[in-house]
Amino acid sequence: MIERIAIVGTGLLGTSIGLALRAAGFRGAILGWNRTVDQARIAQSLGAIDSIAPHLLEVGRESDLVLLAVPIYATIDFMEQLSGLLNSDQLVTDVGSTKSEIAAAAARLYNRPDRAAFLPGHPMAGKERGGAALADANLFRGAVWIFTDDAGERSQRGAELAAEWRKWVAAFGSKIVDLDPARHDELVAWVSHLPQFVATAMSALLEEQVGDAPELKDLGGRALREMTRLGASPYSMWRDIALTNSEHIDLVLHALEQRLQHLRENLKTPGLREEFEQANSFRNDLK
Amino acid sequence: MIERIAIVGTGLLGTSIGLALRAAGFRGAILGWNRTVDQARIAQSLGAIDSIAPHLLEVGRESDLVLLAVPIYATIDFMEQLSGLLNSDQLVTDVGSTKSEIAAAAARLYNRPDRAAFLPGHPMAGKERGGAALADANLFRGAVWIFTDDAGERSQRGAELAAEWRKWVAAFGSKIVDLDPARHDELVAWVSHLPQFVATAMSALLEEQVGDAPELKDLGGRALREMTRLGASPYSMWRDIALTNSEHIDLVLHALEQRLQHLRENLKTPGLREEFEQANSFRNDLK
Repeated sequence: MIERIAIVGTGLLGTSIGLALRAAGFRGAILGWNRTVDQARIAQSLGAIDSIAPHLLEVGRESDLVLLAVPIYATIDFMEQLSGLLNSDQLVTDVGSTKSEIAAAAARLYNRPDRAAFLPGHPMAGKERGGAALADANLFRGAVWIFTDDAGERSQRGAELAAEWRKWVAAFGSKIVDLDPARHDELVAWVSHLPQFVATAMSALLEEQVGDAPELKDLGGRALREMTRLGASPYSMWRDIALTNSEHIDLVLHALEQRLQHLRENLKTPGLREEFEQANSFRNDLK
Repeated sequence: MIERIAIVGTGLLGTSIGLALRAAGFRGAILGWNRTVDQARIAQSLGAIDSIAPHLLEVGRESDLVLLAVPIYATIDFMEQLSGLLNSDQLVTDVGSTKSEIAAAAARLYNRPDRAAFLPGHPMAGKERGGAALADANLFRGAVWIFTDDAGERSQRGAELAAEWRKWVAAFGSKIVDLDPARHDELVAWVSHLPQFVATAMSALLEEQVGDAPELKDLGGRALREMTRLGASPYSMWRDIALTNSEHIDLVLHALEQRLQHLRENLKTPGLREEFEQANSFRNDLK
């Protein structure tokens, strides 16, 4: 039923989704748009999109599905721009990393009988560097893809399109998890935003401390490289996450500060054993 | 000249060194000893050692080189036990992760004309789980191997043995770096101990927060798995590191706590951009 897809934002995620669609057997048309056309050209050369939309507002005209794969505030801007142009035979979905503000915009602008449907999504996959050139049809294989859907009063066709998009996501090899938007934002603060901001803080601190002596960085082994890999992540993406989930992020970072202080105060006590044992438990259960 | 080597402690590092010696063409005898004989049997079955010493004090009797590959305080204990048994035609070396206390013991007990020589070493390589079964002849390839040597008044033969051991280490594919013991301990606090204790604190915190809901751990992607991998590291090894480098570790953890607080207070300000840019710089220069 989904025969025409428009991908708005042909960066790492948008282009990977185009490739995953083709790998999963999607035979319809895929139109692409990107703020800078060079990324759209790369996506086209990789076979992720068939053609490049000359203007953003073109993407909605004949698409069954519009996929927004841009940073969070750009997603909300495009939701506003597109909502008046689309009709109840169309579905919009996204890949934004926080969901409360996007879900609120969806409730305000979509999912009514005379409006397009909106299905908020979040694939828990990515790389520390973006761009179409790094796209990978298997990026979503084995990853969780979260939906925070509040169907509202969407049209019958909107509901059918949403159900079909879920099937495509499953065909990418992702495990679908449904969550409430607020619960989503609370959980990803722990399992995604905490690791990112810790890697950023540690990388920035190390740059200050050993950055002027590049040979010292050689001393670090796999542990150092691994624990700072996410330090390469771009501000442009994380700014919107920090702004749209700041309360949860504040809470998790503060909790880690306290935990580090506790560990530090127990470097010479049996309390250190308890910290290691609790950490070991976490890892033993992690798949 | 080194024809007989004794490896004390046939865990991950000791067994990997036996395998690396063979891979690099060492044709002499390798004797092994381990506190629990099962690990020595695994090392023998892998070809890392030829035979198992019935008693620790046997290892020194006819060896040109005794390699201590045990935790730090066990290393110092064995240094004391062996110093009276060995002579000036023998060399002892180690793989301990902190070097100030070991270097002090070496100065007290070794490196005199009538005593065995001691060359303090630290290969910056390992895995988050130990044991002979995980040993790898290529574990040291591309890694830094630090020596914090104070030759003292060691014998001519001791000096020659130390020079030969450096050649074997280079043959393992390691890059040799020489440092003062105190500077070593300061630097590894930044590039090794900081990543470890952060991973431990974060893993322990996550166990407390989401450990009772295993399905929630699925949400985490590569970032979560990577940033908590070191959470599996054993207390038994890190206890000695914490005890023998506590001042430096206290300093680096406190610095990270302050950095996290700074980042947290700037989640909604342009200060966040500066943190990401400084982190990006660190990663851009990291090999």
